[in-house]
Amino acid sequence: MNQIASVYIATSLDGFIAREDGDLDWLTAANKSVPEDEDCGFYAFMKTVDALIMGRKTFEKVLSFGKWPYGDKPVIVLSRNKLEIPENLSRIVSWSSESPQELSNRLAKKGAKRLYIDGGITIQRFLSAGLVKDLTITVIPVILGRGRPLFGDVKHDISLRHIVTKAYDFGFVQSTYEVEDNA
Amino acid sequence: MNQIASVYIATSLDGFIAREDGDLDWLTAANKSVPEDEDCGFYAFMKTVDALIMGRKTFEKVLSFGKWPYGDKPVIVLSRNKLEIPENLSRIVSWSSESPQELSNRLAKKGAKRLYIDGGITIQRFLSAGLVKDLTITVIPVILGRGRPLFGDVKHDISLRHIVTKAYDFGFVQSTYEVEDNA
Repeated sequence: MNQIASVYIATSLDGFIAREDGDLDWLTAANKSVPEDEDCGFYAFMKTVDALIMGRKTFEKVLSFGKWPYGDKPVIVLSRNKLEIPENLSRIVSWSSESPQELSNRLAKKGAKRLYIDGGITIQRFLSAGLVKDLTITVIPVILGRGRPLFGDVKHDISLRHIVTKAYDFGFVQSTYEVEDNA
Repeated sequence: MNQIASVYIATSLDGFIAREDGDLDWLTAANKSVPEDEDCGFYAFMKTVDALIMGRKTFEKVLSFGKWPYGDKPVIVLSRNKLEIPENLSRIVSWSSESPQELSNRLAKKGAKRLYIDGGITIQRFLSAGLVKDLTITVIPVILGRGRPLFGDVKHDISLRHIVTKAYDFGFVQSTYEVEDNA
């Protein structure tokens, strides 16, 4: 399948993507030290993305931002239960309860070459299914102690190939890895 | 107190320092791709260390290596219960059930300026006690899914200052942080 699924996410040094209640206050606070014209490669990454896949919790968090950050890219929200999509997003956001493999296959047939996988549980499901090709993780210099972890259990070790690391003046460290087992 | 406590440790990308049973096979395997003359700064770091502090599990792991890796640096092993120290190490290894603060104070009076804190639980105890000054973490490009985590819960966020990151050709990424709250 000529399709790439990518992770692009920020974590605390101890590997959390949000507090237990989903709060991103620590990330918002850290972002205050980031120059306005610096997006840590997000725009360049997004240009390569054909569709986004995220879980319900992440979707609801993104909605709470007020401003929709993904332009008119198709977004598929994974949820067991049917989801209400706000009217103004109904053209670009859709709900699915497909498995990662089913969804990837369907999107591949529609020509989606690069998928952006977002949200802890969704990332873990795609990783476990062997569908993630690369991960770009931006480590924020803070230890939270508890929260929602980026990674969960996996059936066997996942070997990675380190591609590049960039340390920013404001203390963020961004590393990109490719999954080795998973050509 | 004119004393620095430092962490210098390797973790998987998902933040584990050992498998659940303490096994370091993944680290041993990764080290096979490291050139023989490359120690990722360990020797230079060790030259600045006056004493090592570790927990019982880490001590027993180190004993299992066969070769004692710390020369004649004083090593204090923290354990609630009294520990048998092998005869050949009795001059340099001692057992203590002191709290991190008590031990730090005692060693400071003896002139120990830099302490090397090792092992997950011991690191977590020193972090929680606000005694860790800097952390050097070498991220190995593998996801384990489960194991003994480097970090545990903390009472409040610990803000860090990123000092330096080095990405090695063989895929290890080593970052040094200083704890901000903790001058």
